[in-house]
Amino acid sequence: MRTTVGIIGAGPAGLLLARLLHSAGIDAVVLESRDRAYVERRQRAGILEQGTADALRAAGAGERMDREGLRHDGIELRFDRRRHRVDFPALTGGRSVMVYAQTEMCKDLIALQLEEGGPLLFEAEALAVEDADTDAPRIRFRHEGHEDVLECAYVVGCDGFWGVARQAIPAGLTRVFERTYPFGWLGVLADVPPSHDELVYARHDRGFALLSMRSPAVSRLYLQVPDGTDAGQWGDEAIWDELERRFETADDWRLARGPITQKSVTPMRSWVHEPMRHGRLFLAGDAAHIVPPTGAKGLNLAAGDVVTFARALTHQRDTGSSELLDAYSQTCLRRVWQAERFSYDMTTLLHRAPGATPFDDRLQLARLERITSSRAAETDLAEGYTGFPLG
Amino acid sequence: MRTTVGIIGAGPAGLLLARLLHSAGIDAVVLESRDRAYVERRQRAGILEQGTADALRAAGAGERMDREGLRHDGIELRFDRRRHRVDFPALTGGRSVMVYAQTEMCKDLIALQLEEGGPLLFEAEALAVEDADTDAPRIRFRHEGHEDVLECAYVVGCDGFWGVARQAIPAGLTRVFERTYPFGWLGVLADVPPSHDELVYARHDRGFALLSMRSPAVSRLYLQVPDGTDAGQWGDEAIWDELERRFETADDWRLARGPITQKSVTPMRSWVHEPMRHGRLFLAGDAAHIVPPTGAKGLNLAAGDVVTFARALTHQRDTGSSELLDAYSQTCLRRVWQAERFSYDMTTLLHRAPGATPFDDRLQLARLERITSSRAAETDLAEGYTGFPLG
Repeated sequence: MRTTVGIIGAGPAGLLLARLLHSAGIDAVVLESRDRAYVERRQRAGILEQGTADALRAAGAGERMDREGLRHDGIELRFDRRRHRVDFPALTGGRSVMVYAQTEMCKDLIALQLEEGGPLLFEAEALAVEDADTDAPRIRFRHEGHEDVLECAYVVGCDGFWGVARQAIPAGLTRVFERTYPFGWLGVLADVPPSHDELVYARHDRGFALLSMRSPAVSRLYLQVPDGTDAGQWGDEAIWDELERRFETADDWRLARGPITQKSVTPMRSWVHEPMRHGRLFLAGDAAHIVPPTGAKGLNLAAGDVVTFARALTHQRDTGSSELLDAYSQTCLRRVWQAERFSYDMTTLLHRAPGATPFDDRLQLARLERITSSRAAETDLAEGYTGFPLG
Repeated sequence: MRTTVGIIGAGPAGLLLARLLHSAGIDAVVLESRDRAYVERRQRAGILEQGTADALRAAGAGERMDREGLRHDGIELRFDRRRHRVDFPALTGGRSVMVYAQTEMCKDLIALQLEEGGPLLFEAEALAVEDADTDAPRIRFRHEGHEDVLECAYVVGCDGFWGVARQAIPAGLTRVFERTYPFGWLGVLADVPPSHDELVYARHDRGFALLSMRSPAVSRLYLQVPDGTDAGQWGDEAIWDELERRFETADDWRLARGPITQKSVTPMRSWVHEPMRHGRLFLAGDAAHIVPPTGAKGLNLAAGDVVTFARALTHQRDTGSSELLDAYSQTCLRRVWQAERFSYDMTTLLHRAPGATPFDDRLQLARLERITSSRAAETDLAEGYTGFPLG
């Protein structure tokens, strides 16, 4: 098998890249180790920056998002029983975000790709990327019981934190940057209309809580929990009780309860792999960087990476210049580190670390006070939330 | 002895307060445990926010400052061999800071007070504040070998971190917030014109460095050093060599060397005492809060406290309402915590902690990158540096 761009992984990064390349008239093959049902079921992110939404539209996959997605013009910060709305368009010159579940985005991209795109092979497990630093890199993979080889001009590893693509870069050439956090998120899906029409980020002495949504009928809620918590430990009523405490306000706001349909714990980690390119192998999304979920940057970083790659490859095809491809790692990392910084700041602003001192608590409140009283500080947050420029 | 306001401590807070009260026609007595020469020699801060400079003018002590002080419209951030100027007036609607040494400010205030103000007793050591929660608080003090008592309507403790005033507040009513840093500043005075006309804050893998000045002929320079460093360990040439390394740039900027006339190490600490008022005892300046020196907030917080007190007391005299006096602690603490936050952020932005990970280093660089590329983030810094509003 032979293609121009071999893409490992049919998560949002790989699928979006396939569509962007298709739109540009560049052929690609996507290899995905899981089956289609699994990919379409994975619950992950759900906040698309304006740039990500635009990329989906550019890839011809924006129609259902624009119909069913919820445009959000702000978030609410909640602390000390106070409520403060951050108005994105007013602060950023018109930018906003779109609430549209990653699973839905993947479904749309898969349907399109199968209908009119190049090959998308499910249950095709990439085993290794070979000859990454030559003009003819290859992906060895297993599909329907056989080993096969995909000969490529370029390989893009969109295969996540556990993927094999990264392993093709000699360890001596790489650096890894990491930070773990002593807490995680217990996330639930509940069949109840969201109690607020925008996301609510709550800082509380008992820990962080987040109110989000998947649709007008489905709430997505999160609680900060100690590292290593088992979701099974938490009964449904205990979850609602705890959410209620952390979202408490001085006014008559109330949290509506409903049946919890899914429960899971997400660990929190900051992690960056440098460089993001080795020869003709390019890493994108979680294969190269992880952010803690606070601030919803993970999916958007992945989208930024593949937009950067598609643009660079198109530039080379059109002009013969590899300038943009050569700069891929540097271009992406500039944005990655801003997102890492933003995610770290949002996380430490709102979570209560186990060993937090009274000084740390006061510092958090002073930060929140600053954001709610300085247009500059609030704008800094709004710019970060709605997204750093691509490229 | 009897007065309306008994002030403990003739540092900048106590002296400025005495002058503000004098201007308002309220009598006060200042007790200072040291002699005049000592007070006039103490090398401390040297950056006055616009609000502090205005307060000096309002106290009739701005003349020499306006003549000899250096108005600074910006600072330089230096990192990764790059130089970035933060333009204060452009970002804050015209605000700037004044470089004028605390010692000079104290000299001016002392001269004025002795000339036309109420009593200012040197070598008068406050021993205790008594009956703070009654209408007739008293300061017991020792002067010229005798114990004496100053009967007051109000007592203001401007006697610094080690002072006695704070001890009059029952421990059960107070809370202390604290953070120490595993490094300090080695500061030198050098007889050489400053190598740059504005302050330079340098982040370097070897640690923080700061270029400041006392006058057009005298440089004030600082190096981050490990906690517990003895200034005597550092030879003059070693200091210049290290400064040169940390201030390195990609262009042809050069650090001029000259004779070092003074050397000392300052520890770094964040510390807040709440509340700042108990009955008729009010705490101001270092008696209630300490900030690490990065960002030069200490002196300015002290000025803010005494301006708030003078305004509140004048309000009570004029209207009979104790509303502002009652709100003193809350009013000051709002500003104090913003300054604590700012000082903490400036410190952690620029210093390299002993256990810093590669992730921490990248995060610092991403923060600096953000400040230099987002007007919002840069404005946030400029607003903090030029000062939070009084009252």
